[in-house]
Amino acid sequence: MPGTPPTRYVYLGPEGTFAEQALRTVPAAEHGSRTPARSVGEALESVRAGEADAALVPMENSIGGAVGVTLDELAEGGPLVITREVILSVEFVLGARPGTDLAGVRSVAAHPQASTQCRNWLRAHLPDATVIDVLSNGAAAAGAANGEYDAAICAPIGAARHRLTLLADKIADHPDAVTRFALLSRPGPPPPPTGDDLTSLVVYIAHDRVGALLSVLMELAVRGVNLTRIESRPTGEALGRYVFFLDCTGHVADARLGEALQGLRRVCAEVRFLGSYPRHRWTDAVGHRPVPAPAGLSDADYTDAAAWLARLRSGELS
Amino acid sequence: MPGTPPTRYVYLGPEGTFAEQALRTVPAAEHGSRTPARSVGEALESVRAGEADAALVPMENSIGGAVGVTLDELAEGGPLVITREVILSVEFVLGARPGTDLAGVRSVAAHPQASTQCRNWLRAHLPDATVIDVLSNGAAAAGAANGEYDAAICAPIGAARHRLTLLADKIADHPDAVTRFALLSRPGPPPPPTGDDLTSLVVYIAHDRVGALLSVLMELAVRGVNLTRIESRPTGEALGRYVFFLDCTGHVADARLGEALQGLRRVCAEVRFLGSYPRHRWTDAVGHRPVPAPAGLSDADYTDAAAWLARLRSGELS
Amino acid sequence: MPGTPPTRYVYLGPEGTFAEQALRTVPAAEHGSRTPARSVGEALESVRAGEADAALVPMENSIGGAVGVTLDELAEGGPLVITREVILSVEFVLGARPGTDLAGVRSVAAHPQASTQCRNWLRAHLPDATVIDVLSNGAAAAGAANGEYDAAICAPIGAARHRLTLLADKIADHPDAVTRFALLSRPGPPPPPTGDDLTSLVVYIAHDRVGALLSVLMELAVRGVNLTRIESRPTGEALGRYVFFLDCTGHVADARLGEALQGLRRVCAEVRFLGSYPRHRWTDAVGHRPVPAPAGLSDADYTDAAAWLARLRSGELS
Amino acid sequence: MPGTPPTRYVYLGPEGTFAEQALRTVPAAEHGSRTPARSVGEALESVRAGEADAALVPMENSIGGAVGVTLDELAEGGPLVITREVILSVEFVLGARPGTDLAGVRSVAAHPQASTQCRNWLRAHLPDATVIDVLSNGAAAAGAANGEYDAAICAPIGAARHRLTLLADKIADHPDAVTRFALLSRPGPPPPPTGDDLTSLVVYIAHDRVGALLSVLMELAVRGVNLTRIESRPTGEALGRYVFFLDCTGHVADARLGEALQGLRRVCAEVRFLGSYPRHRWTDAVGHRPVPAPAGLSDADYTDAAAWLARLRSGELS
Repeated sequence: MPGTPPTRYVYLGPEGTFAEQALRTVPAAEHGSRTPARSVGEALESVRAGEADAALVPMENSIGGAVGVTLDELAEGGPLVITREVILSVEFVLGARPGTDLAGVRSVAAHPQASTQCRNWLRAHLPDATVIDVLSNGAAAAGAANGEYDAAICAPIGAARHRLTLLADKIADHPDAVTRFALLSRPGPPPPPTGDDLTSLVVYIAHDRVGALLSVLMELAVRGVNLTRIESRPTGEALGRYVFFLDCTGHVADARLGEALQGLRRVCAEVRFLGSYPRHRWTDAVGHRPVPAPAGLSDADYTDAAAWLARLRSGELS
Repeated sequence: MPGTPPTRYVYLGPEGTFAEQALRTVPAAEHGSRTPARSVGEALESVRAGEADAALVPMENSIGGAVGVTLDELAEGGPLVITREVILSVEFVLGARPGTDLAGVRSVAAHPQASTQCRNWLRAHLPDATVIDVLSNGAAAAGAANGEYDAAICAPIGAARHRLTLLADKIADHPDAVTRFALLSRPGPPPPPTGDDLTSLVVYIAHDRVGALLSVLMELAVRGVNLTRIESRPTGEALGRYVFFLDCTGHVADARLGEALQGLRRVCAEVRFLGSYPRHRWTDAVGHRPVPAPAGLSDADYTDAAAWLARLRSGELS
Repeated sequence: MPGTPPTRYVYLGPEGTFAEQALRTVPAAEHGSRTPARSVGEALESVRAGEADAALVPMENSIGGAVGVTLDELAEGGPLVITREVILSVEFVLGARPGTDLAGVRSVAAHPQASTQCRNWLRAHLPDATVIDVLSNGAAAAGAANGEYDAAICAPIGAARHRLTLLADKIADHPDAVTRFALLSRPGPPPPPTGDDLTSLVVYIAHDRVGALLSVLMELAVRGVNLTRIESRPTGEALGRYVFFLDCTGHVADARLGEALQGLRRVCAEVRFLGSYPRHRWTDAVGHRPVPAPAGLSDADYTDAAAWLARLRSGELS
Repeated sequence: MPGTPPTRYVYLGPEGTFAEQALRTVPAAEHGSRTPARSVGEALESVRAGEADAALVPMENSIGGAVGVTLDELAEGGPLVITREVILSVEFVLGARPGTDLAGVRSVAAHPQASTQCRNWLRAHLPDATVIDVLSNGAAAAGAANGEYDAAICAPIGAARHRLTLLADKIADHPDAVTRFALLSRPGPPPPPTGDDLTSLVVYIAHDRVGALLSVLMELAVRGVNLTRIESRPTGEALGRYVFFLDCTGHVADARLGEALQGLRRVCAEVRFLGSYPRHRWTDAVGHRPVPAPAGLSDADYTDAAAWLARLRSGELS
C-alpha cells in the first residue's frame, strides 16, 4: 500500500546462513528491511517489543530435528503467531578463497551439525583434512574468507556473501535435507484460507492418563483433520502434564478444524493456537491447489448438518 | 389447560394386556380417552391420521427382544416421535374363575411367549396341565373367564378386568423381566430436557465398510454420548446398507448431543431422529436426578469453547 | 460314512412352516430324520439331551427382528454351537382348497406376523375378507385345508403339504424379506474354515461404562474383524451389565479372529462363543469365494510378526 | 565375573560435560574404562566396530528438545539397542579460577545453549559481562581455567575437573531442566523386565494416510500400552512416509507389549526396535516398584485368554 512503511524483518543470524537465505524466498521481504538477530530469543523479543514486524526463525530440520528453543518460545513466551512457513533445501557447499583448489585443503571450518551432515563426503574427498568446529555456518564462511581456514562448509548464500569460490556443491550426505522456518508476527487475524493450509498448536494434556493422547487424536480424526507433525516435549519440571506440538491440516476458518479446536479446548488442560497459514509451496509460480475435505466434512456439509439440527430442535422434522 | 380437549390415547390391544397396564402409569392418560388397537400398525396409523394424539406400543422386552414391527414402522413409516418411555415389570399371574383351585386346573390358556416365560413354574406346579396357545394375554384371560379353559396366564390387569381369582402371582421364571413401551406422537417440539434424557435414532450406514459402525460410535464417544441400546437390523433387500437403532444418553437440546447428531448426519447415509424424552423413572414420586455431563462436555464448556474459537478467528487471541 | 447312523434333525414346527422349508435346503438333511418341535426351547432341549443331533431354529427375520427366545437360549441355556446358517426368502402364498377362487374368499387365516407382512396385498386384493389370527403359518394352512377358513396365508411348503391350490404367490409387501435360521449342535470342533465364515458371540460388558461398547469394537477393528450384526439386549434384572449379540466376519481358526477373541475375553465380563460357520451361500452350486484378509492381517502376516517378535525377544535382531 | 574384562564405555565428550557426569551415575561404569568421543556418531561407530562396549549419548533435553543426530543414528545407522536410560538434572554452575570473584567477571565463556538457559541469571547478576560462545560446556570450563575468559558456565563436573571455584551454582532459569541420555550397545538380549520398563521404537508409516497415526496409537491403546514420548521427524526426502519415535511403557517380554509390537509390525511400513530397559530411577537406593498392568492386560490374563482360545478351537468349550 502506498504510504505503508516497509515491513521490518528480523531473522536468526548471522548473515550468510540458511535463515537469511530462507527469508529471501519471501517475496515481500525483498521490499522490507532484513536484520539478523543473535539468537532465536532475541529475534522474537524484537517482534514482541514492536521493534520488528516479523521474525524468521528455524522450527525444525530434517537432520537435527525440532529447534527446541523456538518451540519453547512459542509455547511459553509472549504470544506470537505463525503467518507463513518456508521450507528450504539444506544444500551445503564447500567454499574457499579464490585460488584454493580441493587438493590444497588441509583445514575445513564447519559448524558441528554441518560437518556431521557432510561426513561421507569429507571421508571420500578430504580424508586427511582437519575439521575445525565453529559456531555457525556464517562463521565458517567468514573464517575461510579471512584465511583462518583453507575452506568452509557453509550455505550457498554464505559463500556468495564472502566471495568464496565453490570447490564443491551439494556435499551433504542426505541430498534432500530441508529446514523448516516460520515467519512469526504479533497476534492478529490469520491470513485467509487457501484451501491448503496448516494450523499449529501447542496442547497440554494431563499426565499419565492412559489414552490421553489417543483422545486428542480422536478429536482430530473424527473431524478428518490430519497431523503432519507431532512432537511431545520432555519435562523435568514434574508439572504433571505433557505438552505436544501439533501441525494439523486445515485453517482455523474451516468448519471442521473449528470444531476440532473446540474439542481440544474442552478435553485438554490448555491449548495454545500458533496460527493458520498456507502450506509451503515449492514454487510461488503456481497457486495453491486446494485439498478437498474428506467426504461429509466440507463447510457445506457442516452448514447442512447445522440446519438439520435446528429443524430437529424446533420440532419441524423428525 | 382449560378448554383443551382431552388427549386421545391409543394402545396395542386387546384390553387387559400389558400395554393397557403401561398406559395407566402415564398420569395424563387418566384424563384422556384410551382406545385399544388391533395391531401396532393400526395404532400408529391412527396417530398419523389425526384420529388419536398418542399411541403406546411395545418397543422391546427383556425376554423376547425388540418388537420388530414397531421398529420398522419407526424406521420406514410416516414420521412419528417418541415423547415418553414406559418400562413395565412383566409380572405374569395365573388367573381362574372364582371357585377354581390350583389342584383343579387341567388346561391353561396362554400366549406362547407367556407360557415360555413361565415354563419352570408350570413344570413345578402344573406338570400335568395342558397348555393351549392363544393369540394374546387378553385372549387367555377372556378364555378362562368364559369357561373355555380352567385357567389363564395373563397380566394382572387382564385378571382384574375379567374378574379372575389369582391362583398364583409372579410366576415368570425371570422375576425381573420388563417390557419397554414408547408413547408416540406426530412430530413436534420435543419435551424439555430433564437432565436425564434419552434420544432415539435410526442410522443407515454404507454396507460392508470395515469400521463403519466404529466410526459411528466414535462420533458419539468423542462427545461423551453413551449408548443404552444398539441393534442392527437384517435386510434381505440387498440395499447395500445397514440400519441400526440407537438409544443415546442426552437430549437433542444438549450441546454435545447436538454436535454428535450433526456428526452422524455427515458420516451416515441417513439419520432419522426418533425423539428426545425423559428416561423412565421407576416412580413418579421423585423428580429426575440430572446426570452430569462428562468433564469438558457440559453446555457451559461448549459455550466457552465456541467463544474461544471466535476470538481465534478474529485474531484477538492466540 | 457306511455304518454311521443318519443324523437326527429337529426343527421348529409345526410341519409346513418356513423352518421345515429351510431345513430342506440343507443337503445332508435329506438323508436324516426330520422331526418338528413344539417350541424353540423344546428343539434345543432335545439336542442337549442327545435325542437329536441338530436343531434348526429361527434366529432373526428381516421383518420381525431377532427371535428373542432363540438368542436367550443361546446366551443362557446349556451350551450349543451354530454349525451352519440358512437364510430363506420369506415368500408368502395365499392357498385355498381346490375349487376356491379369489373372488370367493371371505375369510383368511394367518399368523399375525404373516398378515402384517401382507397388509398391502390384502388391502388391494381382498379388501372385504376377514383375517383370522391363528398361531402359526402351518395352522393357517391346516385350517384352510379342513374348511375352517376359505384361504390361508402360509409358506409354499405348507400349501403343498396340505394340498392347497395357490391363489397367489409372493404376496408379501417386502418381496425381499428373509428369515435367518441356525443349525445348532452340541459343542464340538467347528466346521473347517472356508475363507468366508462368520463367528457368533455373546458378550457381556460392565454396565454404564462410557465407551465400553466402543472398546469392544476397537478390539475387533484393530484386527480387521467386521461386524455383520450387533444387538444389545434389554435387561430388567439390574445385573449391572449389558449383553450384546455379535456376528463377526472370520473363523475362530483365523489368526486375527483368534487374537480378537482373546482381546474380548480379557476386556469383557464374559464372552460366550456360539460357533464359527460358513456364511450362507445363496446357491450350493458354487463354492465359497474366500474373502481376503485386510492388508497386514492375514495368517501369514501374523506368522511373520510372531517370528519377528521371537527374534526381538531373543536379542537376535533390533 | 572373574576374568571378564572390564566394560569399555564411550561417551559424548569432551571430558567435564554432562555426558560424563551422567555416565558416572551408572554403577558399573566406575569399574570400566570411560573414553570421550568427539561426536555422537563417533561414539556409536566405536560400539558398532567393537572398539567399545557401550556408548552414553544424549537423547533429548527438556530445554533443547530431541537430539536429532542421536535419533537419526538410531533410526538409520547400523543397529544398536538402548539398555539403560539416565536422566540427569542440568545444573549449571558459574566457575572461575581461584581468586576471581563475581564482581571481577567481565567475560563469560558458554555454549550457546547454556547461556540461553541461564539468560535471566546473567541479566540479574552479570548484566555488563560479555558472553562468548564456545563449542561445549567442557570448552568453556577449559577456557576459564587457562585464563582465556574470566568465568565459565559449565557442568559441576567440568568445574571440578578444571579446578574452578564456584562463583554460583544452580544458575539455570529452569531449575528442573534435565537431559536424558541413553546407554547403547550392540544388539543382544534385552535386560530382564523390572516391572517398570520402557521400550523405544522407530515406526515408519505410509505418508498422508488420514488416521495412520491414529491406527498406530490404537494398536497400543488396545493393549494398554501408554506412550511417554512421541516425535514425528520431518523428511525432505519425499519418501512417501512418516517416521515416528515412540517410547512406550512396558518390556518386549511382556505379553501385551509383545502383541502390540506384532500389531505395529503388521500395520506399519517398518518398525525398528530400539530396546527395552528399566525406566530411570532417581535413586539407585530403592528398587523398581513394578507398575501393575491395566485390568485384563497382565501376562496372566494373556495366558488365560490363550488357553481359552485353544479350547474353543478344539471344540472342548463353547
